[in-house]
Amino acid sequence: MSDNSPLRPPLRLGIAGLGTVGIGVIKIIRRQAALLEDRAGRPIAITAVSARSRDKDRGVDLSDYAWEDDPVALAKRDDIDVFVELMGGHEGPAKDACKAAISAGKDIVTANKALLAHHGQELALAAEAAGVRLRYEASVAGGIPIIKALTEGLAGNEISRVMGVMNGTCNYILTQMQATGRGYNALFEECAELGYLEADPNLDVGGIDAGHKLAILSSIAFGTQVNFDAVELEGIQRIQLEDIEHAAEMGYRIKLLGVAQMTGRGLEQRMTPCLVPDSSPLGQLEGGTNMVVVEGDAIEQVVLRGPGAGEGPTASAVMGDVMDIARGLRIPTFGQPANTLRPVTGVKAMKPAPFYLRMVLLDKPGALAKVAAVLGDAGISIDRMRQISHDQKLAPVLIVTHKCTRDALDTALVGLAKTNVVEGEPVAIRIEKV
Amino acid sequence: MSDNSPLRPPLRLGIAGLGTVGIGVIKIIRRQAALLEDRAGRPIAITAVSARSRDKDRGVDLSDYAWEDDPVALAKRDDIDVFVELMGGHEGPAKDACKAAISAGKDIVTANKALLAHHGQELALAAEAAGVRLRYEASVAGGIPIIKALTEGLAGNEISRVMGVMNGTCNYILTQMQATGRGYNALFEECAELGYLEADPNLDVGGIDAGHKLAILSSIAFGTQVNFDAVELEGIQRIQLEDIEHAAEMGYRIKLLGVAQMTGRGLEQRMTPCLVPDSSPLGQLEGGTNMVVVEGDAIEQVVLRGPGAGEGPTASAVMGDVMDIARGLRIPTFGQPANTLRPVTGVKAMKPAPFYLRMVLLDKPGALAKVAAVLGDAGISIDRMRQISHDQKLAPVLIVTHKCTRDALDTALVGLAKTNVVEGEPVAIRIEKV
Repeated sequence: MSDNSPLRPPLRLGIAGLGTVGIGVIKIIRRQAALLEDRAGRPIAITAVSARSRDKDRGVDLSDYAWEDDPVALAKRDDIDVFVELMGGHEGPAKDACKAAISAGKDIVTANKALLAHHGQELALAAEAAGVRLRYEASVAGGIPIIKALTEGLAGNEISRVMGVMNGTCNYILTQMQATGRGYNALFEECAELGYLEADPNLDVGGIDAGHKLAILSSIAFGTQVNFDAVELEGIQRIQLEDIEHAAEMGYRIKLLGVAQMTGRGLEQRMTPCLVPDSSPLGQLEGGTNMVVVEGDAIEQVVLRGPGAGEGPTASAVMGDVMDIARGLRIPTFGQPANTLRPVTGVKAMKPAPFYLRMVLLDKPGALAKVAAVLGDAGISIDRMRQISHDQKLAPVLIVTHKCTRDALDTALVGLAKTNVVEGEPVAIRIEKV
Repeated sequence: MSDNSPLRPPLRLGIAGLGTVGIGVIKIIRRQAALLEDRAGRPIAITAVSARSRDKDRGVDLSDYAWEDDPVALAKRDDIDVFVELMGGHEGPAKDACKAAISAGKDIVTANKALLAHHGQELALAAEAAGVRLRYEASVAGGIPIIKALTEGLAGNEISRVMGVMNGTCNYILTQMQATGRGYNALFEECAELGYLEADPNLDVGGIDAGHKLAILSSIAFGTQVNFDAVELEGIQRIQLEDIEHAAEMGYRIKLLGVAQMTGRGLEQRMTPCLVPDSSPLGQLEGGTNMVVVEGDAIEQVVLRGPGAGEGPTASAVMGDVMDIARGLRIPTFGQPANTLRPVTGVKAMKPAPFYLRMVLLDKPGALAKVAAVLGDAGISIDRMRQISHDQKLAPVLIVTHKCTRDALDTALVGLAKTNVVEGEPVAIRIEKV
């Protein structure tokens, strides 16, 4: 061995998926080779890559790397140690290749939140049985090292609640609605043109993408099997400019907020629009930035904030996992062995909360009294009520309730529909204490 | 082995120092024994403890643990795996006991920022030579898992700047000055009564405690040997209420802000009052909360926020390290082997920045012109200037400069002193771009 031979063999990566993130990872490994080797104690090398099209110009020279058309073949190669899955999608090639990697004894680093949210338990069981690592920092909140913080840094805590704004596109739309007075549809179109939306935009604006992330965080926080189906999902498509404006007047912002907390009856997970105080860290979060809030019995509250997407930040998260593997870190996928994670049933939000209600009343005598009576019958008391000035036959009314359960609210909404004084469907948005 | 025997032996701790943090750690280990074992894959046990007084009532039952009067004896005990140093102080028992632990082959977890800031390099070299781990998450920013984020989660980044508000007492005083209009001295007294101050309050208000933390973060961020002596320190004792108010009028907050960045000539580290925009995360940080901002070539900017002190949060950080050791994580103290860390000389702030200047002019004809001339001669141009209304012979003047170097500013300050139109010493506070 010559004097300048590395003391330890390189960690050899096979990268499947050469989109934004894959190219970002390659750029970091080239640009920071010396720094990474200093820190990892061994070189980080790329052996082979795979993508759908070999000929596409991606702006980086791939000629040093072997090419595989088939990601499954890449995952099985003898000359890789780590299979880096950056293709996306929760069925098909991504899943097949990860399973092949596990069978072949390769560690896995992935940015695939859908894969983890749908098959996390199955993959974690398989990985742990095979003695390989499955790492996924980049799957949640882009560059924010939240998986590591929750799994390791805060491992001494019983977690009571995890919250997050984890879809930058939704937060961009909501904050731009407020800042510019433009409506949802106009901003949705702008996001489409700017390339901010997934191929299926409902993944973003329907809350699915953010719901995937919440389901992953829940598993770590509460020692439960990932259960995406139990996430209560509501997108931002129905948020009206006037709700954003009324909320602002009362000192709130509307956010697509994920909340996970354990209740006596099961795990509450929801990704829905919520009102949060405008002076809170979540309320102050503007544009495409992500934020995750973790609350635990010892830590009280810790907040992490950073870019939720993009080449550099997401590649940074991938590299965090790669470096952990290079350094020999080995912990179970979700922080404790997958075969000890408890299955949970989902429950609807059970803790009472105040709600923001907006409805349009027909201008009939006694209309307000009827609304108040329905709310009262459902056990809901009114904190604040305001009738917005009008000069037509329709009277918009804003109500902020005292704390009530979602069940009570749903009962009231059914009752309101029967009064014949409410035009259309009332808007009801939870006010989350953050 | 019976069916319910643990599969892996417990990790046995010896805890030296039974103040707030030590008791906090004991409480967590008792309260969350099952959870910790699930996550670590082995029980976390306390074998022995040490403190100055055995008889003091600390509100927890210590009878299960062996007692040592001497922390050095504790560190050497055959029946501990990890020496948990929570005594504090950078000379004397803490250092002696840590060295003894290293010699005896014990891993170390410490919350001692002064020890790391003064002897981090020596201790890291010794620990790495002996093959033991030296962990110190609790030494910086209380419960915020910033050491882990910087050393591991962001290991794929070339770090360009680390910033932090890392002394809760100083931030409490500064935000209370603004919120209540009370002066520095009154709030200092209040902090003394509330027990918010170190025995030597200059550690807090002089910026030394926060400077220790910055020096530790710098080492990880830039691959350099901890060099606390190179930290430019300035406390908050000279911050006047009027400066806080003028800053607020211009859209700024005054924070005791740590900034570390690598320059072509050396490492710039400073812990000084700075103006930051009131709409930035740092500007919005209220009370005793801490915040650390990390900027890197891939991550762009990530912000971590949380409680900077207190029993639970600091114990949470200690437990993060304990859990890492229990799980077998092993990386060099400062992220790369201590013998590869570069020695650095400190440099004064070199990057130009705008400055806030407040001075009192004698009400003489041409006084302002003289000031402007001195600034101009030093190469400093004026962005904004305001003379505050007055009815005496003294005219307070506020100036915000365009970007200039600290050297140019110092030249100007010398020049101003010679004009005979400036009463007393001008106040000069850097405006940091955050």
